[in-house]
Formats: sequence, structure tokens, C-alpha cells
Amino acid sequence: MIERLAIIGVGLIGGSLALALRRAGVVGEIVGAGRGVANLERARERGIIDRFTTDPAAAVARADTVVLGVTLGATADVMAAIAPALAPGAVVTDVGSTKASVVASARATLGAHLPHFVPGHPIAGTERSGADAAFAELYDAHKVVLTPLAETRPEALERVRAMWNAAGATVVEMAVDAHDAALAKTSHLPHLLAYNLVDTLAAAADADDVFAFAAGGFRDFTRIASSSPAMWADIAIANREALLAASAAYAERFATLLAALEAGDRDALETAFTRAKTARDACIVPESNEPC
Amino acid sequence: MIERLAIIGVGLIGGSLALALRRAGVVGEIVGAGRGVANLERARERGIIDRFTTDPAAAVARADTVVLGVTLGATADVMAAIAPALAPGAVVTDVGSTKASVVASARATLGAHLPHFVPGHPIAGTERSGADAAFAELYDAHKVVLTPLAETRPEALERVRAMWNAAGATVVEMAVDAHDAALAKTSHLPHLLAYNLVDTLAAAADADDVFAFAAGGFRDFTRIASSSPAMWADIAIANREALLAASAAYAERFATLLAALEAGDRDALETAFTRAKTARDACIVPESNEPC
Repeated sequence: MIERLAIIGVGLIGGSLALALRRAGVVGEIVGAGRGVANLERARERGIIDRFTTDPAAAVARADTVVLGVTLGATADVMAAIAPALAPGAVVTDVGSTKASVVASARATLGAHLPHFVPGHPIAGTERSGADAAFAELYDAHKVVLTPLAETRPEALERVRAMWNAAGATVVEMAVDAHDAALAKTSHLPHLLAYNLVDTLAAAADADDVFAFAAGGFRDFTRIASSSPAMWADIAIANREALLAASAAYAERFATLLAALEAGDRDALETAFTRAKTARDACIVPESNEPC
Repeated sequence: MIERLAIIGVGLIGGSLALALRRAGVVGEIVGAGRGVANLERARERGIIDRFTTDPAAAVARADTVVLGVTLGATADVMAAIAPALAPGAVVTDVGSTKASVVASARATLGAHLPHFVPGHPIAGTERSGADAAFAELYDAHKVVLTPLAETRPEALERVRAMWNAAGATVVEMAVDAHDAALAKTSHLPHLLAYNLVDTLAAAADADDVFAFAAGGFRDFTRIASSSPAMWADIAIANREALLAASAAYAERFATLLAALEAGDRDALETAFTRAKTARDACIVPESNEPC
């Protein structure tokens, strides 16, 4: 049971967590904080939070659980702001898409409170954002990765795990680096590729003609290029090393594929495409038992 | 009105065209041809065709309209097989995803019949294939590109245009090279990128762990990597020059993006992502008025 939950950043992610915890009946008071008062008011109207403040430090006072639902770019500043105000033993967790950068911020700002911090990443989302987009079912049958540190207290880890389980999610523990490498490959690199495709086509002289031929495959492939540029620039920079490594592997294999195409080596293309199709068709999301 | 239609290759594309023309009441007898008897029998059961033969030349005898619904790899052979059997003035069209290679095959095989050939490409499809996958609505609010040649008789072009209009499609005329360049960008390159991403991830030592983190964005992005490897190897080879050009532009811009990432230039990333999001969000499919 969470007596008082502080959510700093009441958007799709933080707001949906609040609604899911209310649905489960495992949370008392929920205090929201953020920079946009209109969004916070909307969150209170929708029953996501009970009250709000624009001062993160005020929000965390007397909270036993603190969730940072802010962007990666704002994480270090928010941590620095709340650190002096945290109640002794209050559990702090975050929702950032990369973990090494968040851990570095925590080490730099949380001081003696570090053992009560549990780095987290719910792998769920939609194209929408803000408190208006929040819904209680967002985490049902979705994965949440926790990347505890050597210093993390077991009871802090267990409380964050219990919170996400109550919200409907499946919790997985991973090392920070393994998380960042895996997400670079399945999420951050695909975003880079999709943004780069649309940017390449838009830059060509025949851009208008070309987009007129966008069919269903193109629509699916480039949907993620409609995501927030600021958020994804933050993620790319925060996970720079892992993303550069994944991108280099991608670019090297792409060059090999193009060499086969240049050489007119149809068999080499079909072999590569078949390997990919086989891997794609075998991929199952364990939580939902659906194809990837 | 089409008195007798011959469809060589009664799969999703050819079969759906037959059903759409029957729906419009603009076709008399439909004769199917292909290599797989089970598929042809299924097509007859479903009322897609009235009768069938495994001999393409027999199928086209006395047909006033001939549609080649075969793969790009089979196009030249089928054209060579039917050429001697075509009725004088019979209109021939195809559905191939690339047009220069098909036109080259037509020039090499159709001889004096070339003015009655209209190269075509319906921009529609699903992941499914075969006569079982065919449905009458496939072309509704979809684009069909026709790329007539200098030799093409105006009445042949008009008959093919009328056929696709009756099937529910919007017909667009383009030059062969413009078609191949546009489709390389919006369809063939995305397939190459998606196949290459899945192949890159599958080749890594941590492949199983990585695919376990595939979320919704990855699913959409890689859906086209489940397409037929043989068909896409054919398309890539057939449209080699345009696809190499599009791929080179893509790779060059990707290298620039990675250089910005390597340099930690967050602003350059956000600028590129914003250009892409703006272009993506502005893209509308004219036939359906829906976002790309």
C-alpha cells in the first residue's frame, strides 16, 4: 500500500500509473507536480491526482513513494530539486527510456538517498501525451524493466516492483547496460531509421510526388517518425554509446546488403530477407502472447 | 465492357481485380491460368474465375483483355509464352511493382503486339497471398499507376484505365522512371531497411533477449519484414538502379545523423527529427484523405 504518492510530471506515463494504482486500490493520496498548471488542473479534474503544486520539492514532502514522470532532459534538475525534501526512506523511481544517464544523475544528486532510488522503464506508450492521454489500462500485459544498483535496498526494489505489478505490468530486472543496449536496438535505432527515411524523402526535389505514393507499408514504417522530436533527441543523446554501437552494426550490414544489390546477387538478397522474415515471424511478445 | 478476361496468376492481386470487376458488372467470362492447380481450383470455387488452364497461351486465346498477375521474376517468361497466342488488338497489362524491368521484358517478347501493352502497378496489397486472400474491395480508394510507352495505343490505355476505375481505383499516369524512383523511395527502400534491421538484431549474440523487448513501435516498423523474401528479392533486383540511388541518399543522411550523435549535437538531432515529423504529419493519402 502506498500512503502518499508524489508524481513529478503527470503526463501519459505518470498519469496512467496513477489511474492504474487507483484501479487496484493500492494508493492513498496522490500529489502531482509539474510545470504546466493547465495540465495539472486537467489531471485533478480527471481524478488522476488529488492535489498539485508546481514545486517538486513541496510535492515530495511526506510522500512515501515518488515517481519521476519527467523527460530525460529534465531528470537531473528535478532530482536535484527534490533531494533535500525527500522523507527518510521514501522510495524514488523514474520512467526514463535510458538508464545509464538517469543513474548518473541520481549518483550526482541524491546523495545518501541513493539506496532508495530504483531506476525503472515501463515499455508502454502511445503517440499521445499529457494528462488527457492517460488511461488505467496502459500497462496491462506490458513489461516494466527495473535496473537496481549495487546500492539499492532490497525493500525499495520490492516496493517499486509491487507498485508496477499492481498497475498490471510484468516486472523484469536487468543490468543498466543490458537495458540500454536492448532498447537501443528495438526502440531507439528504429526511431532514428524512420526519422531518417522521412527526412531523406522530404529533402529530395520530388518530395511532394513521392509522398503521394505512400501506401500502407510506408504508413506503418514511418508512424514512429511522428513522435516528439525533443523527447527523442533527449533519448538519443542520453543513450549515445549504445545507440552508436547499434547504428554501426546496422550500417555495416546495410552496406553488405547494398553491395549484393549492386552486384545483382539476387540469392544473397533472398537469403538475408529470409533470415529476417524467420526472426520476425518467430518473435512473440511474452506478456500478450502476440506476434511482435 | 470486357467480354473475356484472362488472368495469368490468380493471387491476391489478380483475384481481387476479378472480384472487383464482377462487383461492377463489367466483365463476361474470366479465364484463369497459373502453375498451382489447387490455387486455381480454389479461385473457381470462390467464383473468382469461371474456368482455368495451366497453359498461359491457352488462357489468352480469344481474350480481349489480359492481366499478368505473376511475380516480376516470372513476367518475361509468361510474356514470351502468351505472345504468339494473343488475339489481334487484345489489351495486355501487368501489376508489377517495378516498371522499367517489365517494359524491357515487353519490348523483348511482345513484338508487334507492344502498342497494346499498358504497364500498370496497383498500389495495394496485404501480407496475405493466393486466391484465398482475394477480396473485391482491395482497390477501393487506392492508386493504380499506369506508365504508357511512346508506342502505346490511346485506346489500349483507355481500356485499362476504365478497367481499374471500374475496380474502384484511382488511376494516375506516370513516366516509367518517375514511377520506379518514387516506389524505390516509399516502398522498396523501407522494405530493405526493415529487413536489414531485423537481420542485424537477429545476428547479434543477445538476439533472444533483444526481441523480448519488442514493443508496439518495433512491431509496426518491422511488419513489412514479414513480406515474401522471394518477391522482394525480385523487386530489389528489378529496380536495382533506382533503389541503389535511394539507398545511397539514405545512407549519406544517416551518416550525417550519426556524426551529430557522435558529437553529442542534440540540437542537430532535434532539427532533423522535427523536419521529419513535419513532413510525416503533413503527408495525406489523397484517395482516402487519411494521414500517410
